[in-house]
Amino acid sequence: MTLPLAFDILQSGVRLSLICAVVGLGCAFLLITVILRSSPGNERMRQISGAVQEGAKAYLNRQVMTISVIAVIIFVLLFFFKDHSTAFGFLVGAFCSLAAGYIGMRIAVLANARVTQAAMQARTAALRVAFNGGAVTGLLVVGLALLAVGTFYHFARNMIGNDLAVRSLVGLALGASLISVFARLGGGIYTKAADVGADLVGKIESGLEEDDPRNPATIADNVGDNVGDCAGMAADVFETYAVSLIGTILVGVLTVTNASAAIVYPFVLGGISVLGAICGILFVNFAGGKPASVLMGAVGMSALVSAALFWPATHQLFPNGVEIAGKMRSPTDLYFASLIGLLMTGIVVVITNYYTSMHYKPVQKIARASETGHATNIIAGLALGQHATALPVGFIGIAILLSYNFAGLYGIAVAVMAMLSMAGIIISLDAFGPITDNAGGIAVMSNLPKEVRAATDELDAVGNTMKAVTKGYAIASAGLAALVLFGSYVEELRAHLKLPPDQFFQFSLQDPKVIIGLFIGGLLPFIFTAFSMDAVGKAAGAVVREVRRQIQAKPGILTGADTPDYGTCVDIVTKAALREMIVPALLPLAFVILVAVIPQLGPVVLGGVLVGTIVTGLFVAIAMTSGGGAWDNAKKFIEEGNYGGKGSPAHAAAVTGDTVGDPYKDTAGPAINPMIKVVNIVAILIIPIFF
Amino acid sequence: MTLPLAFDILQSGVRLSLICAVVGLGCAFLLITVILRSSPGNERMRQISGAVQEGAKAYLNRQVMTISVIAVIIFVLLFFFKDHSTAFGFLVGAFCSLAAGYIGMRIAVLANARVTQAAMQARTAALRVAFNGGAVTGLLVVGLALLAVGTFYHFARNMIGNDLAVRSLVGLALGASLISVFARLGGGIYTKAADVGADLVGKIESGLEEDDPRNPATIADNVGDNVGDCAGMAADVFETYAVSLIGTILVGVLTVTNASAAIVYPFVLGGISVLGAICGILFVNFAGGKPASVLMGAVGMSALVSAALFWPATHQLFPNGVEIAGKMRSPTDLYFASLIGLLMTGIVVVITNYYTSMHYKPVQKIARASETGHATNIIAGLALGQHATALPVGFIGIAILLSYNFAGLYGIAVAVMAMLSMAGIIISLDAFGPITDNAGGIAVMSNLPKEVRAATDELDAVGNTMKAVTKGYAIASAGLAALVLFGSYVEELRAHLKLPPDQFFQFSLQDPKVIIGLFIGGLLPFIFTAFSMDAVGKAAGAVVREVRRQIQAKPGILTGADTPDYGTCVDIVTKAALREMIVPALLPLAFVILVAVIPQLGPVVLGGVLVGTIVTGLFVAIAMTSGGGAWDNAKKFIEEGNYGGKGSPAHAAAVTGDTVGDPYKDTAGPAINPMIKVVNIVAILIIPIFF
Repeated sequence: MTLPLAFDILQSGVRLSLICAVVGLGCAFLLITVILRSSPGNERMRQISGAVQEGAKAYLNRQVMTISVIAVIIFVLLFFFKDHSTAFGFLVGAFCSLAAGYIGMRIAVLANARVTQAAMQARTAALRVAFNGGAVTGLLVVGLALLAVGTFYHFARNMIGNDLAVRSLVGLALGASLISVFARLGGGIYTKAADVGADLVGKIESGLEEDDPRNPATIADNVGDNVGDCAGMAADVFETYAVSLIGTILVGVLTVTNASAAIVYPFVLGGISVLGAICGILFVNFAGGKPASVLMGAVGMSALVSAALFWPATHQLFPNGVEIAGKMRSPTDLYFASLIGLLMTGIVVVITNYYTSMHYKPVQKIARASETGHATNIIAGLALGQHATALPVGFIGIAILLSYNFAGLYGIAVAVMAMLSMAGIIISLDAFGPITDNAGGIAVMSNLPKEVRAATDELDAVGNTMKAVTKGYAIASAGLAALVLFGSYVEELRAHLKLPPDQFFQFSLQDPKVIIGLFIGGLLPFIFTAFSMDAVGKAAGAVVREVRRQIQAKPGILTGADTPDYGTCVDIVTKAALREMIVPALLPLAFVILVAVIPQLGPVVLGGVLVGTIVTGLFVAIAMTSGGGAWDNAKKFIEEGNYGGKGSPAHAAAVTGDTVGDPYKDTAGPAINPMIKVVNIVAILIIPIFF
Repeated sequence: MTLPLAFDILQSGVRLSLICAVVGLGCAFLLITVILRSSPGNERMRQISGAVQEGAKAYLNRQVMTISVIAVIIFVLLFFFKDHSTAFGFLVGAFCSLAAGYIGMRIAVLANARVTQAAMQARTAALRVAFNGGAVTGLLVVGLALLAVGTFYHFARNMIGNDLAVRSLVGLALGASLISVFARLGGGIYTKAADVGADLVGKIESGLEEDDPRNPATIADNVGDNVGDCAGMAADVFETYAVSLIGTILVGVLTVTNASAAIVYPFVLGGISVLGAICGILFVNFAGGKPASVLMGAVGMSALVSAALFWPATHQLFPNGVEIAGKMRSPTDLYFASLIGLLMTGIVVVITNYYTSMHYKPVQKIARASETGHATNIIAGLALGQHATALPVGFIGIAILLSYNFAGLYGIAVAVMAMLSMAGIIISLDAFGPITDNAGGIAVMSNLPKEVRAATDELDAVGNTMKAVTKGYAIASAGLAALVLFGSYVEELRAHLKLPPDQFFQFSLQDPKVIIGLFIGGLLPFIFTAFSMDAVGKAAGAVVREVRRQIQAKPGILTGADTPDYGTCVDIVTKAALREMIVPALLPLAFVILVAVIPQLGPVVLGGVLVGTIVTGLFVAIAMTSGGGAWDNAKKFIEEGNYGGKGSPAHAAAVTGDTVGDPYKDTAGPAINPMIKVVNIVAILIIPIFF
């Protein structure tokens, strides 16, 4: 892995992209001041928003404590059994992943009441405040990821040389991924336990509306939106971004001759897209029109700017082309690979939108099936989730085929990195969701006029689709990123065992060990999600018991005479979520290490495990997130007055579907993204320890 | 593939096993006369049983017509594009698969009223009549499969030589599999459309009990039990049996030096187990005790007899061992491989029983979750289904590893064949289910005393678990059988392309084409089951509309003043089921042929497709059948008086779960078995056409 580094390209390219990252972070702080300047609303609104802020902060602080214990243990293990730089990389990755989620969420909870307040004046103003709140998280995630990987790599290379520096980046990837499994699971369990718990006992048993302040679990529910959709998603996409960047560097080093430009390229793609994201953000702040079209316009704008700038950058970096795995590739080949990544983003967004928006047939079919009862609603939703896997997976296949034809495994990595480079603008859309959701909650709890709630409801519906769309994007990019990691596993194994190519493991499907690996790996997403759903069930049960206890102890709560104790509900969900996340989060670690340790299994079976997890993981995650999003919007479709509207039997059935969809789309499904990467990264890390 | 045939071993071994098959068929006819000798009950009972018989016959006749059209088209295609013997093999396979289902179902509908009648005297008598009805199907399936494959092979070898004869067996396998996809889907859609339709409009809208004669769909519901669980399952297991037998022969020819004994061995295993099954049947007819223990005792008895006789037979056939893929294996190695198959049967039975019987924690957990509503019941059931995949897949992995270590790919094939050889006794248990279910229906519809219904209900609960257990067995064996077929695909491809081993496709996971294949193949079970569930929904909708129409036209139906028109309901489900089965059934064919035809894909992608389908198919099928069985029994557990019993909110939630589970466990899940084999067989067949 020794390579003649052209230090000038390396340094100037990386430096430029880091400047872009810093510009992005600067814009984020600018946006924060813009948001803070707007009015936080009246006394009551600030009070509610304050309670949500407090609950969210309390949860995240405790989550940090819990995760820190595990992080320290892994740090120590890496420090002694692996090497120091990998261990420090792990710390950097873990810290930044947490920080991205933490800061993003803090801004979201500051923005929520301000959106409500803005909605009292004009919808456009509300849209902008909410979007800017999300954009802070978006810019933070990509800026932090570029900065963290770039500066860590820079310092590590100066201290221990390029080879070891690249290797220790895997530690950074592990830190980011592992933390994000915890954040995704913890946040996902929290948000859905609070949501399901509040619904079961509030709506069904006591006949309260959504966000009714008499429901003791309502603040916990609003906190959940932030810790799950905002902090969890931010950590998740930070992780995918950092891992794709690192994976591309690894594949570049392992398969490209004279790899220096290949190492710089992913940084440059990332840096350029920060500028693209900023253009998109400006677009939202100055364009007018329907919320959904404005937001989609922003994505298109970002992609166009990135696509235009990728062309000169690629030619600048690879003026004479590049030799990849023994084959010469032109700069145009690489440019096309990067375009595939941008196109995939658009395609996945359109497909997920089709399957989860209430304006198209699939969701309306679920709504119609609700007329014949709970069971037919569920069957229709389950079938829709499975149907929704076909197109994304088909296009992922085409993307793999094309980008591999353009530039081998490195081409796939470039496509993934280009796809991930869009994360800045995509997360802005996603974080928009919980902010508008909270804004609606605050409007109801503060007894604001109905029109305000109508305005926030309109934004909320858009936010729901955006959340679903982002999840589709996250899982598709995660699947591709994991494939790049699998490629790195194979190359690392080859380098470690120093076997000549003809003697090397072929990971051939004819080998029963590979098949067994595929089975073991294929199993992981199934039981991982099963454990996650159980966890939501248990934590929700705890909420239900607490709410029942409060209502029994103070019957005045339901009449409004007594104030419920929101704090204990927040506290109980916090504890339950953190307790329940441990087992599923450690499952992927346990699987990989067990397979590596058992002598009858070993490296070949492990290779099968990695691919098996990616294959079934992709299907299970898409089916769950699409199905869940569709159930949610089918309910909203009925609430708009179709099939009997609110209060009809069809609505009751749709509520059941929505509740089943909750852990699907917000806990189990999205947690698969970081999970499949943890599996692959851990496998790369343990090669020198066990094989 | 030329091989020096030791004709004497071949002929005497195959001949002996065919004699066993004939003995088995003889016993089946003996059992038929025993059943027909018992009393068919009073006028009213005979009338109802007659209506069910008529409906079932009408459906199967039309199904035969529909399938025949497709079968003739494929026959013609094979005749002109492939070779005549393969085309004739296809016909034989298709005919026998249909016949096994047809005859078995005819006996089941003759047995149902006789079980009700016997239940009026003694439970043991009822158990025996029901079991003997099932045993007819069990013996028919294995007897017919052995006879069909054996005699076809015998004649083909005499006419066109051993090489072509073995090849044309693949045609027979295709005939059996393709027909069984149709039978499984058609029967599955029929039974669940009638069941769900009858429940939705009868129980929920009109407040009628299960099997109430005032429900116009009740006869269709009872017909469904027979065409789905009895005819569908018989065709399915016939197919798995025939395909495993043929797969073992193929693998024997392709990997074993001096293959004659290796060709005979699977026949001998099959023949011996017919004797084992007969011992098991005798056991039920003479032993006393609890129904569940008697039935499980019969399985144990069969397995012990088979295990004892396998030992001398193996040593007789391979006195000096055998060379497999260049490595010498002792007869004991082969014997151990066969034992693994028998053990797997036991293990799968125990595991599925644990996850689906109401006496264990998993089902009781679903029942408890029903207390908090429909949604938590569904979440618990979905999670259970996914959990239930872990142990079976783990043991399948171990079985593959061990049997491959004993005797390579042929060892896996032997284990599969040994597992399938237990089909005789296992199907007897399965077909027992619909017979007791019908018997209960007849008891209610004939207004017999409550104790009779109590007696049949007890048998029915046992039957439910047995049905779930058989499905676990069917899918596990199907997964293993498909792996053997994939091995045959690889070997056939190698033989066809005449490539030296070092130039041959490795189907390596590093090859993006293999990954794309895994994705495409992995997708198939997801959308196949999605289409199947949609089909049930559509067909059930047709039933609901018809029942509503009848009740509106003749309101006297609900008071008992008017007789409902059962015939139109039967007719409507028949048409709907046959119409809706076409698309999903042709899906696997379309996938394989498309992948083969598109030049960018081709043989390597196709290899990935085959394995991808097996991997996700196994998980999806186990999750669906176990989850469905567990939901069903959770409802039964509540009906026994737990968590509020019948009529409580928990019961309503459990009914929702049961209804969701219906298409899961009886339509989509089990249809995956033949589907994954069709994919593999078609791939083998098209090698010389497209590559």
